[in-house]
Amino acid sequence: MAEFDLVVRGGTVVTATDTMRADVGIRAGKVAALADNLPPEGRVIDAGGLLVLPGGVDTHCHIEQLEPNGTVHEDSFVTASASAFAGGTTSVICFASQFKGRPIGPTLDDYRRRARASMLDYALHQIITDPTDEVVEKELPAVVASGIRSFKVFMTYDPLHVDDRQMLRVLAAAKRLGAMVAVHCENYAAIGFMTEALLRAGLTAPKYHAWSRPPVVEREATYRAIALAELVDTPIQVFHVSCAEVAEEIARAQGRGLKVWGETCPQYLTLTAADMDRPGFEGAKFMCSPSPRDAAEHERMWGMIRRGVLDVISSDHCGYSYEGTSGKSQNGRDVPFRDIPNGIPGLAARLPIVFSEGVAKGRISVNAFVALTATNPARLYGLAGKGTIAIGADADLVLWDPARKVTLTNALMHHAIDYTPYEGMEVTGWPVLAIRRGEVVMRNGTVQAEPGSGRFLPRGPYALATPRGVVANGFDPAA
Amino acid sequence: MAEFDLVVRGGTVVTATDTMRADVGIRAGKVAALADNLPPEGRVIDAGGLLVLPGGVDTHCHIEQLEPNGTVHEDSFVTASASAFAGGTTSVICFASQFKGRPIGPTLDDYRRRARASMLDYALHQIITDPTDEVVEKELPAVVASGIRSFKVFMTYDPLHVDDRQMLRVLAAAKRLGAMVAVHCENYAAIGFMTEALLRAGLTAPKYHAWSRPPVVEREATYRAIALAELVDTPIQVFHVSCAEVAEEIARAQGRGLKVWGETCPQYLTLTAADMDRPGFEGAKFMCSPSPRDAAEHERMWGMIRRGVLDVISSDHCGYSYEGTSGKSQNGRDVPFRDIPNGIPGLAARLPIVFSEGVAKGRISVNAFVALTATNPARLYGLAGKGTIAIGADADLVLWDPARKVTLTNALMHHAIDYTPYEGMEVTGWPVLAIRRGEVVMRNGTVQAEPGSGRFLPRGPYALATPRGVVANGFDPAA
Amino acid sequence: MAEFDLVVRGGTVVTATDTMRADVGIRAGKVAALADNLPPEGRVIDAGGLLVLPGGVDTHCHIEQLEPNGTVHEDSFVTASASAFAGGTTSVICFASQFKGRPIGPTLDDYRRRARASMLDYALHQIITDPTDEVVEKELPAVVASGIRSFKVFMTYDPLHVDDRQMLRVLAAAKRLGAMVAVHCENYAAIGFMTEALLRAGLTAPKYHAWSRPPVVEREATYRAIALAELVDTPIQVFHVSCAEVAEEIARAQGRGLKVWGETCPQYLTLTAADMDRPGFEGAKFMCSPSPRDAAEHERMWGMIRRGVLDVISSDHCGYSYEGTSGKSQNGRDVPFRDIPNGIPGLAARLPIVFSEGVAKGRISVNAFVALTATNPARLYGLAGKGTIAIGADADLVLWDPARKVTLTNALMHHAIDYTPYEGMEVTGWPVLAIRRGEVVMRNGTVQAEPGSGRFLPRGPYALATPRGVVANGFDPAA
Amino acid sequence: MAEFDLVVRGGTVVTATDTMRADVGIRAGKVAALADNLPPEGRVIDAGGLLVLPGGVDTHCHIEQLEPNGTVHEDSFVTASASAFAGGTTSVICFASQFKGRPIGPTLDDYRRRARASMLDYALHQIITDPTDEVVEKELPAVVASGIRSFKVFMTYDPLHVDDRQMLRVLAAAKRLGAMVAVHCENYAAIGFMTEALLRAGLTAPKYHAWSRPPVVEREATYRAIALAELVDTPIQVFHVSCAEVAEEIARAQGRGLKVWGETCPQYLTLTAADMDRPGFEGAKFMCSPSPRDAAEHERMWGMIRRGVLDVISSDHCGYSYEGTSGKSQNGRDVPFRDIPNGIPGLAARLPIVFSEGVAKGRISVNAFVALTATNPARLYGLAGKGTIAIGADADLVLWDPARKVTLTNALMHHAIDYTPYEGMEVTGWPVLAIRRGEVVMRNGTVQAEPGSGRFLPRGPYALATPRGVVANGFDPAA
Repeated sequence: MAEFDLVVRGGTVVTATDTMRADVGIRAGKVAALADNLPPEGRVIDAGGLLVLPGGVDTHCHIEQLEPNGTVHEDSFVTASASAFAGGTTSVICFASQFKGRPIGPTLDDYRRRARASMLDYALHQIITDPTDEVVEKELPAVVASGIRSFKVFMTYDPLHVDDRQMLRVLAAAKRLGAMVAVHCENYAAIGFMTEALLRAGLTAPKYHAWSRPPVVEREATYRAIALAELVDTPIQVFHVSCAEVAEEIARAQGRGLKVWGETCPQYLTLTAADMDRPGFEGAKFMCSPSPRDAAEHERMWGMIRRGVLDVISSDHCGYSYEGTSGKSQNGRDVPFRDIPNGIPGLAARLPIVFSEGVAKGRISVNAFVALTATNPARLYGLAGKGTIAIGADADLVLWDPARKVTLTNALMHHAIDYTPYEGMEVTGWPVLAIRRGEVVMRNGTVQAEPGSGRFLPRGPYALATPRGVVANGFDPAA
Repeated sequence: MAEFDLVVRGGTVVTATDTMRADVGIRAGKVAALADNLPPEGRVIDAGGLLVLPGGVDTHCHIEQLEPNGTVHEDSFVTASASAFAGGTTSVICFASQFKGRPIGPTLDDYRRRARASMLDYALHQIITDPTDEVVEKELPAVVASGIRSFKVFMTYDPLHVDDRQMLRVLAAAKRLGAMVAVHCENYAAIGFMTEALLRAGLTAPKYHAWSRPPVVEREATYRAIALAELVDTPIQVFHVSCAEVAEEIARAQGRGLKVWGETCPQYLTLTAADMDRPGFEGAKFMCSPSPRDAAEHERMWGMIRRGVLDVISSDHCGYSYEGTSGKSQNGRDVPFRDIPNGIPGLAARLPIVFSEGVAKGRISVNAFVALTATNPARLYGLAGKGTIAIGADADLVLWDPARKVTLTNALMHHAIDYTPYEGMEVTGWPVLAIRRGEVVMRNGTVQAEPGSGRFLPRGPYALATPRGVVANGFDPAA
Repeated sequence: MAEFDLVVRGGTVVTATDTMRADVGIRAGKVAALADNLPPEGRVIDAGGLLVLPGGVDTHCHIEQLEPNGTVHEDSFVTASASAFAGGTTSVICFASQFKGRPIGPTLDDYRRRARASMLDYALHQIITDPTDEVVEKELPAVVASGIRSFKVFMTYDPLHVDDRQMLRVLAAAKRLGAMVAVHCENYAAIGFMTEALLRAGLTAPKYHAWSRPPVVEREATYRAIALAELVDTPIQVFHVSCAEVAEEIARAQGRGLKVWGETCPQYLTLTAADMDRPGFEGAKFMCSPSPRDAAEHERMWGMIRRGVLDVISSDHCGYSYEGTSGKSQNGRDVPFRDIPNGIPGLAARLPIVFSEGVAKGRISVNAFVALTATNPARLYGLAGKGTIAIGADADLVLWDPARKVTLTNALMHHAIDYTPYEGMEVTGWPVLAIRRGEVVMRNGTVQAEPGSGRFLPRGPYALATPRGVVANGFDPAA
Repeated sequence: MAEFDLVVRGGTVVTATDTMRADVGIRAGKVAALADNLPPEGRVIDAGGLLVLPGGVDTHCHIEQLEPNGTVHEDSFVTASASAFAGGTTSVICFASQFKGRPIGPTLDDYRRRARASMLDYALHQIITDPTDEVVEKELPAVVASGIRSFKVFMTYDPLHVDDRQMLRVLAAAKRLGAMVAVHCENYAAIGFMTEALLRAGLTAPKYHAWSRPPVVEREATYRAIALAELVDTPIQVFHVSCAEVAEEIARAQGRGLKVWGETCPQYLTLTAADMDRPGFEGAKFMCSPSPRDAAEHERMWGMIRRGVLDVISSDHCGYSYEGTSGKSQNGRDVPFRDIPNGIPGLAARLPIVFSEGVAKGRISVNAFVALTATNPARLYGLAGKGTIAIGADADLVLWDPARKVTLTNALMHHAIDYTPYEGMEVTGWPVLAIRRGEVVMRNGTVQAEPGSGRFLPRGPYALATPRGVVANGFDPAA
């Protein structure tokens, strides 16, 4: 056996299936050997007493993303990378924007240039807000050919949302091109209607954000997204499922054999709508869409996770500070909820929260933790070589101390955002060292990677993104 | 006991609950007495060997209706009345149009003028296609005050369809005003998308109408209509449910306690998508929306009827001939399915088909037949005094020969349409005499009423149209 | 029209379908006329301001019933009749016992002799505890031929319960003979197992009765009863459903088209398991099987009633006093729950409680009240001429004051039992006069009927008790 | 790195999660290394072009098992081992009998002695037919202490079946002792009832076996087993699920969070009830319980497998020849179905059939194949070190040629049975070499192991067998 560049010795290696006492031999950035006793060749890291996990894969992160209103998500690829590494995540998928009425190309090129600073390995979802003929016929094939094999559509948000006809066009294009479609499911019209009614009634505080979009608003859009995907026969993932009644519609679709997957996020397992009712304007810090729900949903959601209905836990990391020019309180503290930027940061907090709430509290096994936060997201989005510890896979590893108790603070998040919604939460389990393609990029909270050292992860065709081959009357409307 | 104007003697009176050997005494157009042996006062009709049923109530008929393209449904109030009487129906609800961009008032006034010719008693549904502020705030209150206590919205059809925001406005207005909302549930965008794909593929024959709107298209819209009604908390009826998977979504909503009702029509119990594939252009005669489905659905639909999930059977009578200037083959026999007028006539055939398929074939009791075709529709739409045989109720009666076998022909339909989709179907059970408010209006297939003898049925507030009082967070967006 | 023996004038007649201002003319014990204005022939009763309802039909009453241990339910046919009349009920079905190892005949003869004292009209359910060849082949045909067209089986209770094989024999016999089967659904072995565990742990107080039979025990047996009935293909009614999870299994079976009906009782809409934890030994007064459940179940159960899943509300009236030799505290107040007689009285309280909780509180219409408490039970068990107000039907009427507020006391119950579990409950709505076959049998709480004036109601074949004709592989195991 | 005893080079290693080009280094019977390029130390096996899978784990095999009637399953531990190895299976769990009225001890001792001849590694399920106090309190603790951590109960079969009370005792004992319970779910009484009816009607041919136990018989027992396990709160696996309606009940239980798992077998994915209707007496060769169902069930069952509702595929291998003194046609070819021994051989055919029907036909991934046939069964039954390829795990490997096409014949099965129900079936994918704890035990169909070389696999406490900790009212009846 050739020499290794790095050997991680003495740890307990965990995959989605196995838990094994094994040394990990790394060569040229890849896992070259797993063995009961590797020679201490090359650099050696002692993992005694620690879990050796695949680096976290976060397939839902907004990083340095351009919004239609000209703002940019505050976390740059550099700060987001630091935050991810600090929290044990080594790969992400973030979002290339499309601005309505403009071609995708230049915006994507610009975003790719920004992304070159990344320390994280990253893939891209292409947001589609305006699936014109030009976009569908010319640009999307090029986008996919360039290694971007997933599209994101919003069923709500001005001016991002697509209507059903546009969504069908995107689904059909995805089917033809072999791309996965991720969907933000909330009913645009219903939110607008509720919001207007609330504002008309003078109900403007942050907590009314939740009132403007009760579960039925998310449940309806989820059902609709699934129905449209069924009509076209193409796979989708429902993003950020917030509560069990929404997950139940996904379960029903899965029960009928559809290729529909569900994602959830730590906020839907820990935060509640009541958090948006904290004194002063603090509630804005917990505002995201869909809204966090009742505390009783948390346990129901863990049930849905154990059933496999929801099999990916991402962060939906968003870059909006509380203070600052594009922050949540940008326009003063009496801004109505409608005008507060949506979204919360969570890149660094994701793994510790899921480990603590899930594994430490006995709700899931450590193997399930790995599956939910690394293996499944990598598979679902075709990230070859990511999300597992296997011979030939990228040597993305996290050394995890399962017993370490940490109180979360914003400083620990290493992001550019001025707060974390999880401030003060105590977690059990913590990442103490992160390795990206054989290189140590974080050690005891200190990030030590070079900007630009991250790689773009081009994706080719893969099985999960292929259609079932079942259409009504044998007629394929996407053909 | 005062004298009767008319006594129907010797028949078996049937209500939704009871079957009784009873004479019916009628005075001043109302049922004044039910008794085992009424004196032969006034005029006497012998009902020996016959069932005496409440006159049929058809809450879904397009009569002399103005379409946005300037055409008018071919059956006038006079011919539709004749057709209804011939088939045992004595009351209907038909549709007042709204043309986008124009106020409701004048169109409604015009329609009311036309309706004065009716021999049938009639109520009106107000179609809403354009719920502007003016319409919602000024016109609809007046419409309801004038005795029109139900609105109809189309989720598909150009240019009739409303989007979700408009639908929410209609639902909210209905809640405030105490009106029932009837919904045509099909996804507009999906039908457009499928239609375009089919035409692009050169698939233009009538049978592709069914391909352009598979069940998922109807199921999705049904789910959405229910969700929007749940958000607003207002009762709705889902029109013309075509198949069990759609009904199942209604059943789920009912199971959660929502005020959601489902209607179906004889065509969904007897016709199939294959009928649209008959030789030549004949298929156009069976084209309606939603499309008839597979034959296997018929039995499933009867199951849904027996479960009570679907509790009204209407005709969705439409006035399009096969030949003629506005007929189904108006533009030649190679017109693509998209351009063929949708809808089939069924006013006269409704009761015989439901009786024959339901009662004569042992699927439902005769009491259930009365409930489905008279009592339930009258109750659901607040038609006081209609749909039952009870003291004080309008003396609308049909004498029904349960054993008479009849082969359906277009001549028997007494309508202005040049065909019936049920031509040649043999039925068991037939109406031999119809009485409207104590007046014999049909005897042995001869209609004998005066144009203008029908009455408008103004409707006041009623319990089924009131909201449950359950809204998320206690916030009523319709307030 | 011939003269009437009695005319009830000025009331509002209510049936399961209709509500009408009508006089009721009665001749020879039957309803001879319903009319807007009957001449005051014969005796006249003024029903002004009152509802005129069909007399209540209670298809689940234990009256003077012989138990295997030699005790007899305390209410005799005379006292039970008084109680029923006081509460507005005019017909019942009670239970003829079978003692294991003994033929049915003599026990039935004895019971018929006792029943001759009845003032109530009554039918009989034949309890079957020991379906030997002799019983199945010889006795049951005779039992049915004598007009007893329903069998009752217990899945629990020593020594009454039948095992699955015995139950299949009963179901097959019922199918061959055209009889309905009523089933007490609880898992015998599970109750024994739980009871033993509780007693072993020293948990003997009345409240542990509920612990010994949690909902899963009832739900399992319900599922099993339905499955066995499906195998044989014969109709059943599930007695005394206590909670929504049990009703849901019935709903699923109904959704598959099975002929399965569900009954519930006032105790499951008003009492809770916590009532059995009242101070001292008072809890014994609320002990019945299945056990009352949580308060949250009450609203869920009303939902199941509105859905039609449960369509009969009976009393399950049981004759055990609190004091006395066979009473609940017979053996001293420290008797373990296992040895306390199960069952509570409810014959008189049934209608007032259901009206008050259902109609007065807006949960159901008055027509639904009539359906649930009179029409449906009469139909389900083939009681011709009972349960409705129709020409030719028995003139069993209750004049009901919908506004009268009454505080329930045991004295108002008119039964032989020394308590009512509803002591102190305030109800709105009260029966002020009862008529049985044209004879006033109760007026303002005074019962005025002759012992022996009640009639046995023999039942012939009827549609609801006929099988669907659907068996696996076309093989009928009951043939 | 120390030297290896054996290196498997050049293959594609497959686990439930990963597919990797890797060499496998084996030392002392365990996997010591997985690496991209291991030195050719020790013995080297070339796996080029082959899949390297974990040896199959079959947790449901009847081997040399003693039946109450004195017969012994025909496959001895030696022939069964050969058959297993030939088919790629290296570990099994088989069944120690309990004879009613006799202590477990001596029977178990006898069986352990027989098992010493095994070449397979094996664990034992303890069948419990008679859970007396003595058995529950004295013997079962000893059985578990000896490393047997699963019990098997039959809900049907004379004289094996337990009644509900006995089953509750077994479930409670399992809970206290930390053992998994496997259940044969069919309703004993229903089968007896149907069988009697069929024989009475002269329907005795093998095909009536299926008629004697339609799906409802299995579905009911499954529901009951789950309910009893829920009452006690202890984990169970439902054995040999035959059709989707049964699996659906398991899915519902899983949806409520219960620890219930479902197994199926190749026969329910390939055979049908019609196979029992083959000419002559051939049908007996396909007779097992539950019965194979309709062909349409196969695809539904694959759907249940993909949903994860069924997560183990075992063989339920049974040792009854067609000819011979205890064979299926032992008593002549006109023996009624009731008297034909139930069960079919499948130890060798299991993996090839599941691979061919599942992986080769595109229904499941090769990782899912490994999970279903090795990883999941090993985990569910606590077989440490089995069912996966991981550092420290037992070196049980199968080299699998995914492209090899083979026509199944009885000779290929290597068992003592004189037929295979799969005779003539063509499969794609075949095991070419098997390694058990580092030792090659099969090569190209030649078994080369020593009798007695297999090991008993004692099992300790494990997570999947622990209760949820959820009991009604907080009362644990097993305590």
